[in-house]
Amino acid sequence: MAERAAARLHLSGLCFFLQLLTIVLFATFVRYNPESSKLCSTEPSCNQKDPSPTLGYPRFRDAHLRALLGFGFLLAFLSRYGVGSVAGSLLIVAFTIQWAILAQGLFYFSQNSKIYVSTQSMVSADFCTAAILISIGAVLGRVNPIQMLLMALLEVPLFACNEYILRSFLMVSDSGGSLTIHTFGAYFGLMVSRVLHRPHKDKKKEQQDVGHQPDVFAVVGTICLWIFWPSFASATTTQDSAEPWAVLNLYFSLAASTLATVILWPILYEEGTLQVAQLQDATLASAAVMGMAGEMLSTPFGALTAGFLASQLSLLSSRFLSPILRSRLKTEDTCGVHNVHGLPGILGTFLGTLLASLATADVFGDRLELVFPLVADGSRTTAEQAQWQLLGLVVTLLLAAFGGGITGALLRTKMLRTPPEKNEIESKALREVDEDGCDHQAGREERGTIV
Amino acid sequence: MAERAAARLHLSGLCFFLQLLTIVLFATFVRYNPESSKLCSTEPSCNQKDPSPTLGYPRFRDAHLRALLGFGFLLAFLSRYGVGSVAGSLLIVAFTIQWAILAQGLFYFSQNSKIYVSTQSMVSADFCTAAILISIGAVLGRVNPIQMLLMALLEVPLFACNEYILRSFLMVSDSGGSLTIHTFGAYFGLMVSRVLHRPHKDKKKEQQDVGHQPDVFAVVGTICLWIFWPSFASATTTQDSAEPWAVLNLYFSLAASTLATVILWPILYEEGTLQVAQLQDATLASAAVMGMAGEMLSTPFGALTAGFLASQLSLLSSRFLSPILRSRLKTEDTCGVHNVHGLPGILGTFLGTLLASLATADVFGDRLELVFPLVADGSRTTAEQAQWQLLGLVVTLLLAAFGGGITGALLRTKMLRTPPEKNEIESKALREVDEDGCDHQAGREERGTIV
Amino acid sequence: MAERAAARLHLSGLCFFLQLLTIVLFATFVRYNPESSKLCSTEPSCNQKDPSPTLGYPRFRDAHLRALLGFGFLLAFLSRYGVGSVAGSLLIVAFTIQWAILAQGLFYFSQNSKIYVSTQSMVSADFCTAAILISIGAVLGRVNPIQMLLMALLEVPLFACNEYILRSFLMVSDSGGSLTIHTFGAYFGLMVSRVLHRPHKDKKKEQQDVGHQPDVFAVVGTICLWIFWPSFASATTTQDSAEPWAVLNLYFSLAASTLATVILWPILYEEGTLQVAQLQDATLASAAVMGMAGEMLSTPFGALTAGFLASQLSLLSSRFLSPILRSRLKTEDTCGVHNVHGLPGILGTFLGTLLASLATADVFGDRLELVFPLVADGSRTTAEQAQWQLLGLVVTLLLAAFGGGITGALLRTKMLRTPPEKNEIESKALREVDEDGCDHQAGREERGTIV
Repeated sequence: MAERAAARLHLSGLCFFLQLLTIVLFATFVRYNPESSKLCSTEPSCNQKDPSPTLGYPRFRDAHLRALLGFGFLLAFLSRYGVGSVAGSLLIVAFTIQWAILAQGLFYFSQNSKIYVSTQSMVSADFCTAAILISIGAVLGRVNPIQMLLMALLEVPLFACNEYILRSFLMVSDSGGSLTIHTFGAYFGLMVSRVLHRPHKDKKKEQQDVGHQPDVFAVVGTICLWIFWPSFASATTTQDSAEPWAVLNLYFSLAASTLATVILWPILYEEGTLQVAQLQDATLASAAVMGMAGEMLSTPFGALTAGFLASQLSLLSSRFLSPILRSRLKTEDTCGVHNVHGLPGILGTFLGTLLASLATADVFGDRLELVFPLVADGSRTTAEQAQWQLLGLVVTLLLAAFGGGITGALLRTKMLRTPPEKNEIESKALREVDEDGCDHQAGREERGTIV
Repeated sequence: MAERAAARLHLSGLCFFLQLLTIVLFATFVRYNPESSKLCSTEPSCNQKDPSPTLGYPRFRDAHLRALLGFGFLLAFLSRYGVGSVAGSLLIVAFTIQWAILAQGLFYFSQNSKIYVSTQSMVSADFCTAAILISIGAVLGRVNPIQMLLMALLEVPLFACNEYILRSFLMVSDSGGSLTIHTFGAYFGLMVSRVLHRPHKDKKKEQQDVGHQPDVFAVVGTICLWIFWPSFASATTTQDSAEPWAVLNLYFSLAASTLATVILWPILYEEGTLQVAQLQDATLASAAVMGMAGEMLSTPFGALTAGFLASQLSLLSSRFLSPILRSRLKTEDTCGVHNVHGLPGILGTFLGTLLASLATADVFGDRLELVFPLVADGSRTTAEQAQWQLLGLVVTLLLAAFGGGITGALLRTKMLRTPPEKNEIESKALREVDEDGCDHQAGREERGTIV
Repeated sequence: MAERAAARLHLSGLCFFLQLLTIVLFATFVRYNPESSKLCSTEPSCNQKDPSPTLGYPRFRDAHLRALLGFGFLLAFLSRYGVGSVAGSLLIVAFTIQWAILAQGLFYFSQNSKIYVSTQSMVSADFCTAAILISIGAVLGRVNPIQMLLMALLEVPLFACNEYILRSFLMVSDSGGSLTIHTFGAYFGLMVSRVLHRPHKDKKKEQQDVGHQPDVFAVVGTICLWIFWPSFASATTTQDSAEPWAVLNLYFSLAASTLATVILWPILYEEGTLQVAQLQDATLASAAVMGMAGEMLSTPFGALTAGFLASQLSLLSSRFLSPILRSRLKTEDTCGVHNVHGLPGILGTFLGTLLASLATADVFGDRLELVFPLVADGSRTTAEQAQWQLLGLVVTLLLAAFGGGITGALLRTKMLRTPPEKNEIESKALREVDEDGCDHQAGREERGTIV
């Protein structure tokens, strides 16, 4: 009990330190974007400066709406990765948003050594937080809240670095984050999981990720994902007018992915009933596959096909690859992020590469200069653009593996690695335990331990 | 067990066939609306073509927002009709959206034998999906997933046909779908239920629809309906400027309907406690009654009165008409769609007819040409418009009864009609079963079987 | 049982009377804003009247969006104050919205003795409903539905009166309602609770408000609050262009408040696990503190610090002040509204006063005339503005205490004060009882009664 109290105080102290740190850094570096206080763009009197003054106002409102929907998405996302520990996940979200504003600001918004934030920065911070939650999904249940906070502390700068390289350096088009969010998040988490592997502990829990939380969270989460994700995933398309393809493609992909889950599921799993959690996985997989290709697909049937393939890939991987990953590669994957984000993200990148190599001004029209500005102005051929897109995948995988390895090694240090028994207690210190036995995750774990 | 496995494979095969079919049809016919890729309307340089260039951009954004909210509504709707089988209902939604795009496209969007989709098409597909879910609500628990999919396959074209006749032929004003969604969906489902009636089976389950799911889904569903429905129901008002009446009328109607439920409920049901599910019914009834009249009512107290009447009608029908429907007319109605959608939809049509006959340019102002274009340009008198509105009700009821009868007869064919015992197993194959006994629908059914 | 039936009929009769009353009053006084039916502001042809015609349309859409989000917020709010009686709370919401339109209309919208409503009126009615729900949160479980309805009947006019004095008379800047919603609602409810105090009854229930509902409602409610509150709290900022500060400040404050809860919680409560309900409290406290200061804070780190302080204050008050309030001041506080709304609201007022006294045209730029119009046009100094802000706090506290006292005294009259046993039965007549034992509130109460 003394150790448990000490761990509680450690967590309290760490939170205090981190909150103080962000307040000090915010006070030093972060300012509101001065442009958002200039009301000029909405006033007809400053026509001279702005060629399309009347567009300023709705553009601003959209950025605001995006931040709103971004948060909606983020917290809907919680219900997938935070069933066992919503309180803990909310803690991570609260810290990551502040930290991501700082980390991304260093790369993007720095002018006269100040970081200027706007509603758009909140959307970027949301993207980052989504990747962190995916990573934590791979190790959930085997790390304590202190380790989760430290993991976020280390992963956020690497995410910002990867995003910066892809967007500003390689000029890769990845508006919905197939690479930056899904692939990076999944493989970072898997690498941490691999390094944290402890032979004795994990053997006992082999059945752990077979089941799925059969509860109301999956329903609420799936509903929120359908509502908020399409808008979120298209939030960083270069210009608003390029959005409808991204949004519609994502909707079509969601529909096909959901329907297609029913095709393979009864064949792969002869026993057991199809649950909403599987359809939530299909929703996420189709979002991962549409991240890059969403704004590039010019025909609805392409989106249907991609959604179809994503759900099949996700189900096959969950059936055949996950056991290999666990037994041969010694990599636990609590929430199945490899099936739901990792592989579909890579599939999405291949699809995006294919579409980039096929892009012509004929099909894309005015849209070409929005999606592939370098192709439109002639400084890259479509084949070159496709190569850069593929290079983005390699960079992302390398950075995720490298970063995950280092992070995992740090989390393994003796100071942080509480012994298994205490660890279990600690991870429950922050976990919402429903007294009516609704904490299915905990329930499963206990059953897992018994078996 | 072998039969169960076979049924699972049949479902898998049917889904595969349907998904393949829609992909092929989409590849052949469906293209993105080329106008959504032309960025002209948002550029100040093309003033010549478009008289109000600056309005193009927000109009586009609104269509996007509607698709978003439409889906939100649709999935909120799920939580009413899908308590026992959210996974199954999601499957129906995923298929119906794709199928509705195709079916409605044949009537509306066909140019050079292509269907051009835009965000507005997604809203139309949502409307259709809502009607399908209402119909399935009448037979829920007595059809297996294969029958549900076939029912959607047949009902969608009939829905599109009815919508086309009402909107483009009879020029009926029905922006919120009192007729097209609520009345059509309810009576189609009831007709299917009547034809599917099996004397021995149903007698055992007579108590089935007395209770209501007393759980978190009703709360979440009601909240989502309050948030999303007003915006959704006004999504197809001719022009955005005509919306505020529709939205505000629906809000006032919701409030009055909720309060009025408490008036009659304690008198009708002397025992039992008022639950959120009853208030959700009141919410839906007030939405059904406001569907047609929403954009026509010019005074807030009219909306209060209509909401008041809708909830009283719904409660009285549930208390006195439902038993007659079940015992005399041999029509089961699992979710009470007759009380919640059917009768309030008809009431809404009568209200809309009354308002149409009273419409004057004096009260409506500029709005007249938006709500009743034919009255505004003088080609119809208000009395004639009212007659056409009423004719719309007749056409809808005939098409619903005819279509429901044929669909029910097809679903009764021996090939599909699994024996009762297996049927029960099958309908559970796709049903989310909460291990903590939260599947209240299943619970009720079992109790029903015991009694 | 006869008494119970009588109480049910009393409630039914009261609802009937109230609904009839609002319908008659609406029919007499309330009309739709004629401007919302004039389509002029969206037509380029009426440039003459409106200097910025193109802005008319998006402004209108925003008001619509706000009404939507306002309702979203309101119903999300329910899940905090209505766990034990969602149906009862929905009833209060349905009545209060209608009543608030009338009461606020008397002060604000009255022209030729008509009240003109628009989407903006719905947002104002939402603000009022939020305050009523906060007040009811203080007495939840100790009043029956009839008393709740009467409390709303009396509090709504007082709320409208207080709002009118602060906004139009003292010219206090309080866009997010630190004073009008949070402080007024909390102290009104506490005063009612004090007057309703019954020594024998309440002693038995001393443990009542220690625990928290550890369930799905807290998660869903917190998610919805994060999604909808920032937009809602900034809904009445003078001009849309002034919003981003309010929204971003609230987001930053939410993040810091959530993280900071983990700092103090393990120290104050050595046993027990941190639950989502605590983080929901932190969310609400940070919203209360940002209500007034949201649009005044010009640096993000200020929002972080304010959120940090709000959650610490709320936790310390819940640990040390609540027991004193209960035992010494004989004031029960079922939902802890004093900690979550009362004190953070006062803290927010002090912060707003400080910021008002520091406001300079240098920092605020064009924004000054939006936030402090009287300072901008020179008719008040910043010191004077700060004094008026502080005076607003005094007025609010006096009106809340006075109104709460009178309301409590009325609710104590013998006619309404059902004996304890019946009271308990009655309050359950409207309460959703989950058959699987998920009605934690009821559960706690029963345990409380046993101890």
